[in-house]
Amino acid sequence: MKLSSKNLETRLDTVYDAIVVGGGMGGLSAAIYLARYGLKCLIVEKGKGRSMWMQDTRNYLGIDPTTPGRDIIKHGTNQAIEWGADHLRGFVEEVTDEGDTFAVKVKVGRKDEVGTVLRTKYLVAASGIIDVLPQLEDMQNVFDYAGYTLHVCMICDGFDMWDQKAVLVAGSPGQINAAFVLNWFTPYISVLTHGLYEVSDEMKQKLADHGYPLYEQPIAKFHGEKHKMSGVELADGTMVEATTGLVGMGSIYHNDYLKGIKLEYEGKNLVTNNMCQTSHERIFALGDLKQGLNQVSIAVADGTLAATQIWRTIRRAAPPRKWEENLVGTAPQ
Amino acid sequence: MKLSSKNLETRLDTVYDAIVVGGGMGGLSAAIYLARYGLKCLIVEKGKGRSMWMQDTRNYLGIDPTTPGRDIIKHGTNQAIEWGADHLRGFVEEVTDEGDTFAVKVKVGRKDEVGTVLRTKYLVAASGIIDVLPQLEDMQNVFDYAGYTLHVCMICDGFDMWDQKAVLVAGSPGQINAAFVLNWFTPYISVLTHGLYEVSDEMKQKLADHGYPLYEQPIAKFHGEKHKMSGVELADGTMVEATTGLVGMGSIYHNDYLKGIKLEYEGKNLVTNNMCQTSHERIFALGDLKQGLNQVSIAVADGTLAATQIWRTIRRAAPPRKWEENLVGTAPQ
Repeated sequence: MKLSSKNLETRLDTVYDAIVVGGGMGGLSAAIYLARYGLKCLIVEKGKGRSMWMQDTRNYLGIDPTTPGRDIIKHGTNQAIEWGADHLRGFVEEVTDEGDTFAVKVKVGRKDEVGTVLRTKYLVAASGIIDVLPQLEDMQNVFDYAGYTLHVCMICDGFDMWDQKAVLVAGSPGQINAAFVLNWFTPYISVLTHGLYEVSDEMKQKLADHGYPLYEQPIAKFHGEKHKMSGVELADGTMVEATTGLVGMGSIYHNDYLKGIKLEYEGKNLVTNNMCQTSHERIFALGDLKQGLNQVSIAVADGTLAATQIWRTIRRAAPPRKWEENLVGTAPQ
Repeated sequence: MKLSSKNLETRLDTVYDAIVVGGGMGGLSAAIYLARYGLKCLIVEKGKGRSMWMQDTRNYLGIDPTTPGRDIIKHGTNQAIEWGADHLRGFVEEVTDEGDTFAVKVKVGRKDEVGTVLRTKYLVAASGIIDVLPQLEDMQNVFDYAGYTLHVCMICDGFDMWDQKAVLVAGSPGQINAAFVLNWFTPYISVLTHGLYEVSDEMKQKLADHGYPLYEQPIAKFHGEKHKMSGVELADGTMVEATTGLVGMGSIYHNDYLKGIKLEYEGKNLVTNNMCQTSHERIFALGDLKQGLNQVSIAVADGTLAATQIWRTIRRAAPPRKWEENLVGTAPQ
């Protein structure tokens, strides 16, 4: 059922089998499976997730490559609700471990100062990450190209950059190294630091050895039309010709609500086992929040795994359902 | 490119980066990724795979649940070919490890006695399994219901059996235990042995304790209309009322072509690491052939993982592509 501030009170006494934080690719897949296992689940979706930036879906089997992420999200949301999942547009602020349950504090709408506490046996962290984009005064100029010809994922879109002149916007000295992977797809790489840091002589030499120009001025403006880049203008007026680009500036992890719970991380990524279970046996993590590839197909499979493991555990602990009418006077055959 | 016996000779001197055995969900996902990594790959598809039996696709995010498996296969095949993969309708008979390459012997068409040998650096085993169905004199009677209301996968279709009268066709004494999982979805379970084996007194008692009738006669006929079961008629004329059923009779593994290569198995399933790599570093296994859940989403993610690992290995061994024109007279900045 679609929940909102108007009907949320009907769920105050509910103990969900699972609350899924994030209604993106992983979270929806988990919810679809959980619902089809007959489990009571709620998706809390804050909106504006990473898949909403995807203008096309290149590598996901069965989906036309021109399908934008938002279409898959919409389709999957309806499907999950149809099969019995609850769906709430809201923001999970805090999760507290109460022993057998978690208290999940959700804020619904911008004016919600207090929040509502919902309860669940299992928590599925599917709130993902969001890519850092270069900050310009006119962010609309960045949004005009990001997700179209200015990419954030080389695995997803490297093929579409093949042998084109490309900029690599590297957010830190270490992220310049992406050039030496991107060159599988194109060797015509200009590296932009956006004026954020100094580049070591050693790296300058390495770039020069590869023939990749380095520009250390801040970006002023992306040029092009209809989402197709033609170049990048720098603060000093330099024009860098490029029909595509890769932004490698890191990601913001949407996992603040987990900060009160001790969990094992590798870097910023949650460590999980082969069923997406974190170091807390009742918390599962999917997709970009955990170790591994950040791909739609992986997040969708993660949802399958987490939901299945939750079902197995709940099912094994449940009393068996008997065919009662057959038991009256039934002797072993 | 679509290959056939007519143009196969154009590939006799090719060394593929990867040959993917099986053009089902996992194999196509692998091929789509491999093609988009710019790698040379060939899918060999024998036809009539497990996904061709899927009359609907319930749990795969983004796909309408009424989509039959064959539609996804067709769509993905076209997509892989469009992005540069080769596709051949044929049967892989034998794979021989030649050190740096594999010789893959393929038979194309029923009259092909000799076969054609193709070469590849990596092999992706995505040939899957096929479910054993109860053997009746009139197999069309089984096919009329299999994949519609007579299911082979509880995770996929248990939800659609909810609280219905169901038969469990168990292929061996051990497979009767599926009743005690199926009862999560419905407790109205009749167990059919199809006359294949004896049931122990202990199991008889356990079934009686649950109220699940046991029928040890062979199945004569499935009753119903338009793919909707109404019951099962046994050899002695008994009618078992049921609107749905689960066949638990095991699977045939399509992996004969691997028999000449030493690989680690757990039972019949190939053991793989977290990138779907088998115990042979140049052989990957996907989906139902390997350990883990037999689900579309898992096979699709497996394709992503295997293709990515193959790409990483090939890329790391390749010389870096330089921007040659910038190297002339370029000094370090």
